[in-house]
Amino acid sequence: MNTKHTILAIAPHPDDETLGCGGTLLRHRAEGDDVHWLIVTAMAPDQGFPPERVEARRREVREVARAYGFAGTHELGLPTTRLDRVPRADLVEAVGAVLRRVVPDTVYLPFRHDAHSDHAAVFDAAAACVKGLRPPHVRRVYAYETLSETEFGLRPDGAGFRPNLFVDIGARLDEKVRILRLYAGEVATFPFPRSEECVRAQAMLRGSQAGCAAAEAFMVVREVR
Amino acid sequence: MNTKHTILAIAPHPDDETLGCGGTLLRHRAEGDDVHWLIVTAMAPDQGFPPERVEARRREVREVARAYGFAGTHELGLPTTRLDRVPRADLVEAVGAVLRRVVPDTVYLPFRHDAHSDHAAVFDAAAACVKGLRPPHVRRVYAYETLSETEFGLRPDGAGFRPNLFVDIGARLDEKVRILRLYAGEVATFPFPRSEECVRAQAMLRGSQAGCAAAEAFMVVREVR
Amino acid sequence: MNTKHTILAIAPHPDDETLGCGGTLLRHRAEGDDVHWLIVTAMAPDQGFPPERVEARRREVREVARAYGFAGTHELGLPTTRLDRVPRADLVEAVGAVLRRVVPDTVYLPFRHDAHSDHAAVFDAAAACVKGLRPPHVRRVYAYETLSETEFGLRPDGAGFRPNLFVDIGARLDEKVRILRLYAGEVATFPFPRSEECVRAQAMLRGSQAGCAAAEAFMVVREVR
Amino acid sequence: MNTKHTILAIAPHPDDETLGCGGTLLRHRAEGDDVHWLIVTAMAPDQGFPPERVEARRREVREVARAYGFAGTHELGLPTTRLDRVPRADLVEAVGAVLRRVVPDTVYLPFRHDAHSDHAAVFDAAAACVKGLRPPHVRRVYAYETLSETEFGLRPDGAGFRPNLFVDIGARLDEKVRILRLYAGEVATFPFPRSEECVRAQAMLRGSQAGCAAAEAFMVVREVR
Amino acid sequence: MNTKHTILAIAPHPDDETLGCGGTLLRHRAEGDDVHWLIVTAMAPDQGFPPERVEARRREVREVARAYGFAGTHELGLPTTRLDRVPRADLVEAVGAVLRRVVPDTVYLPFRHDAHSDHAAVFDAAAACVKGLRPPHVRRVYAYETLSETEFGLRPDGAGFRPNLFVDIGARLDEKVRILRLYAGEVATFPFPRSEECVRAQAMLRGSQAGCAAAEAFMVVREVR
Amino acid sequence: MNTKHTILAIAPHPDDETLGCGGTLLRHRAEGDDVHWLIVTAMAPDQGFPPERVEARRREVREVARAYGFAGTHELGLPTTRLDRVPRADLVEAVGAVLRRVVPDTVYLPFRHDAHSDHAAVFDAAAACVKGLRPPHVRRVYAYETLSETEFGLRPDGAGFRPNLFVDIGARLDEKVRILRLYAGEVATFPFPRSEECVRAQAMLRGSQAGCAAAEAFMVVREVR
Repeated sequence: MNTKHTILAIAPHPDDETLGCGGTLLRHRAEGDDVHWLIVTAMAPDQGFPPERVEARRREVREVARAYGFAGTHELGLPTTRLDRVPRADLVEAVGAVLRRVVPDTVYLPFRHDAHSDHAAVFDAAAACVKGLRPPHVRRVYAYETLSETEFGLRPDGAGFRPNLFVDIGARLDEKVRILRLYAGEVATFPFPRSEECVRAQAMLRGSQAGCAAAEAFMVVREVR
Repeated sequence: MNTKHTILAIAPHPDDETLGCGGTLLRHRAEGDDVHWLIVTAMAPDQGFPPERVEARRREVREVARAYGFAGTHELGLPTTRLDRVPRADLVEAVGAVLRRVVPDTVYLPFRHDAHSDHAAVFDAAAACVKGLRPPHVRRVYAYETLSETEFGLRPDGAGFRPNLFVDIGARLDEKVRILRLYAGEVATFPFPRSEECVRAQAMLRGSQAGCAAAEAFMVVREVR
Repeated sequence: MNTKHTILAIAPHPDDETLGCGGTLLRHRAEGDDVHWLIVTAMAPDQGFPPERVEARRREVREVARAYGFAGTHELGLPTTRLDRVPRADLVEAVGAVLRRVVPDTVYLPFRHDAHSDHAAVFDAAAACVKGLRPPHVRRVYAYETLSETEFGLRPDGAGFRPNLFVDIGARLDEKVRILRLYAGEVATFPFPRSEECVRAQAMLRGSQAGCAAAEAFMVVREVR
Repeated sequence: MNTKHTILAIAPHPDDETLGCGGTLLRHRAEGDDVHWLIVTAMAPDQGFPPERVEARRREVREVARAYGFAGTHELGLPTTRLDRVPRADLVEAVGAVLRRVVPDTVYLPFRHDAHSDHAAVFDAAAACVKGLRPPHVRRVYAYETLSETEFGLRPDGAGFRPNLFVDIGARLDEKVRILRLYAGEVATFPFPRSEECVRAQAMLRGSQAGCAAAEAFMVVREVR
Repeated sequence: MNTKHTILAIAPHPDDETLGCGGTLLRHRAEGDDVHWLIVTAMAPDQGFPPERVEARRREVREVARAYGFAGTHELGLPTTRLDRVPRADLVEAVGAVLRRVVPDTVYLPFRHDAHSDHAAVFDAAAACVKGLRPPHVRRVYAYETLSETEFGLRPDGAGFRPNLFVDIGARLDEKVRILRLYAGEVATFPFPRSEECVRAQAMLRGSQAGCAAAEAFMVVREVR
Repeated sequence: MNTKHTILAIAPHPDDETLGCGGTLLRHRAEGDDVHWLIVTAMAPDQGFPPERVEARRREVREVARAYGFAGTHELGLPTTRLDRVPRADLVEAVGAVLRRVVPDTVYLPFRHDAHSDHAAVFDAAAACVKGLRPPHVRRVYAYETLSETEFGLRPDGAGFRPNLFVDIGARLDEKVRILRLYAGEVATFPFPRSEECVRAQAMLRGSQAGCAAAEAFMVVREVR
């Protein structure tokens, strides 16, 4: 990876990017790539979230962005848990506008069949944006797994997450866990899935599949060489 | 099954619970379990249903509940055939409220890929409710098949109903059929699928798969032991 | 095919019918069948399309209908790219009304997993209409592939277009291409997928699968004999 | 169906053709088509079957062929339950020889994922024969379901039998059952799946899916028009 | 689980039963069930394994059986890595003989799509044995996952291991690990998948899916109640 | 791609490598990579092939290897169309020996569900070799599509070839076609699928999916970064 890449990590909610591809983003940074963050939802004021919770979240986003050294943070501010109410064409347009501004060659997405319906909506919108007629610059699209979402998809019809791309994050796992801890309100203690223990256990298992001490796993959605 | 269980049968429309798992609910009752009924939709007045039809339906629901000896009937009253218009988060919240009130250990759901879009919406909402982070009490979730819906799912992509759990209802089939007849407006004569003949034929075939005279078939969505 | 058939080709947007089953429709016409066209969406004025674009589209539709010799053109006029905002029950009712008027025995549909969400909405609505309880006249339902939509479906879960019905259009390919050219705004030059080159390449490959010089390919959704 | 067709029904073991497509074959006969029967296995003497059982089977085959009025019966005589031991290329060659002799345009096959490994072997061999480079005469290939085999396929991975072709056999069901009874040793009493009761129940359910009193159901493997 | 059950755990090779369902078998023992072990393959002398390796394996099997307190150990002694060479009917007959002797009501199987072809052969043979016509006593069949086999199945077609049954083994995990260590030759150090670290990480992740500290995960193949 | 790679293209039969990934191999060569060719089968003398045919094939292999500038040609010489008769463990061992000798980092394989059973056998054996416990050097495994095999896989269960990796071969297509012509006996005229016309049509369509004039398409089996 000698060329400098422009990366866009799309998170339905803040913390998805860290759970799903935090170590990989850190590697991109270490290799000199520009990494951008697209956060699709926010706690909308009219959803009844207490102002201090909204403010805490804003602080977390800033700290996380700084910890990664992101080149840009792009927030769509759509109402969390309610993306099914946003007209699909509007969501496609909003994601597309960021793609045109950032001009990434590599995009990381949540998995289509995660338990959370926001993840499905984000996948569909992003897939529509990169489907091939348009942005020729997007040459690599990968779907990540999100602890507490991907393994809780319950549709009994076989469409599970089956990774075919493994990224060695052995040298970045501790840093990933440190960043995850910045999301005080989202992380809890084991056996809660979004816990340091589960993140480490998952990294170990994905690592053992790839012959290394820790890995993140992806499904290749589309790559052009 | 020596412990007493609390059961919740979720029906998008009244009669789904009987077509899908009526015999199994009767077995639960006979074994001393508490059985609750969650009816998601109703004929909303502003949908233009004639008042006498709405009243007849109300009467049917009462009679069916009495015939089963249900411990509780929970009606969400959402507009029938229009669940795609109800915000997903609202549907999740409404189903979740019933789960918190009933505290069931066992839940019966319609199949995700039934022809009727209301069935898909109910499956998705219920799946979101029981996905594992929250109600620890729900330890068994099963999807039932609904004559006239499950076998009419037309998506040509392989995700059909493939049962892996069979419940012997040989001793309850006649009672199931009697209850089904209470839904005067929903049942018709063969070859209409919601007919006594089809219910009996399906019970026989599922029975022959399980080595008994009559059975209901399910897909195990999630069970914890 | 000695009996005279009544055919309905359902197009989410004008040009889908030609890309997907134009050659087959021409064969139906040549064999004396009545062919109807159902166009689900239109450029709604309030979507901000310039009037001359709307007018050009209207002209194209007229010319295409004449070129095929369609027995009827049925336009629902729903807003393009925004079918996810139309209540499902309304879409089902609108498609159902056309089915009751045309009384077709054969229906051609877009594929459920095309990239465009309008295609999914149309498939679902049409599937609900023909699901078997109702119109006994619809005995054959086929899903067609649409260049630039079907091959761009990105869901990484296996539900791709796998044709099992091939129609020899060797004698109609040139005419299909001529009709496609009437859609001036939709067709571009290779390697754009909606190009004459791609249409011919696809017809050749499908032909080689079927042992003829050119073919269109379908998935059989449901057929009764 | 005004042209006269030549049909080949491929049965791994005698009785599969009747369970799977007996009513459809009777319709073909009634419509004037030539119907051929290919029986892949036999009770090989060195498999230890008692001579009177082998003789009884021979008699059954003759009687069944006569009852249908088959134009030809083609027996490969391969060892029953042991097709996995026959080199695949030999099985392909043996099936191919019959295809070259009979020159059918329509072929009926067992389903690929039936419980019995002989069914899988027969499907694979026949699929290799008709795969498109060679016999241009085979224009229609359908997979049938076999009571006691198709519903007992246990692979928990979604590849179930999902029919998309239904043939009305209302006028032929009694005759199908009469022929089935000729297989004295294979048929038993309900809830055994190969019983008259199950055959009738299945025909009813498939009928209710197709809007008629009795039907047989198929998956379209490949059809060229 | 108040009735006493008879359990059969089928292992293609010794250690599969421990990796896949060791904790669950220990729970069965603790609850008073009889547990039997069926080992399908052995290091056949003519496969060139050194005698001391064969002897060590024999000792391991004895020690493991003692540690679990198995009611019986049944060894078929078929050549390891070469089950594809054993006629399917012979393998079915050999597994069936054990089923007739043990008369289990519950059977644990390897997953059909594990990387190792021996696992597929064992699944297919056992599935043929329990397919429903015959042993009425087998009422529960579950497929387990095997570290180093299940996650290495590479077929890129979606048929991955998607568990729907979770068994809490929090109180048995240490004992499972102790037994695993008895297989000196099979276990290695992390990131090798058959390592104590991976076993613990997997138990944690499966536990977090089920709301407990450690779990084993299964796919329900077939259950009759 | 600035590091020098070692590539292994595995062909069940000579010409599969060219149909499937000929343009990609030419790009690898142009970028300075070492490319090796593993040919699994040969026309065994005892299979009754005429000596001049065997000799012609030998000549073709030499010419093709020279045209590509392969670093090595590795022939296993197993009997063509009869790989199902070769013990799986032997095939795994034979492929594994080549992997140990060549030490590739990138492997190209045929697709698992191609029509030809030799392709399935080669995929399974190679997958077993690279499954992760062993050769750490193999970091990228891709499955290619083979005209006349991949599109003729007839299993009606959804496991079709769905590419997620596209390689631009616009600058190499003519050379690929020239090499293909060296296989005089395998290539024929359109609509035969192994024809220059079909190769060009397929390259165009795959190109239009990737935004370039010609492409080859792959499924990513496994990649480690």
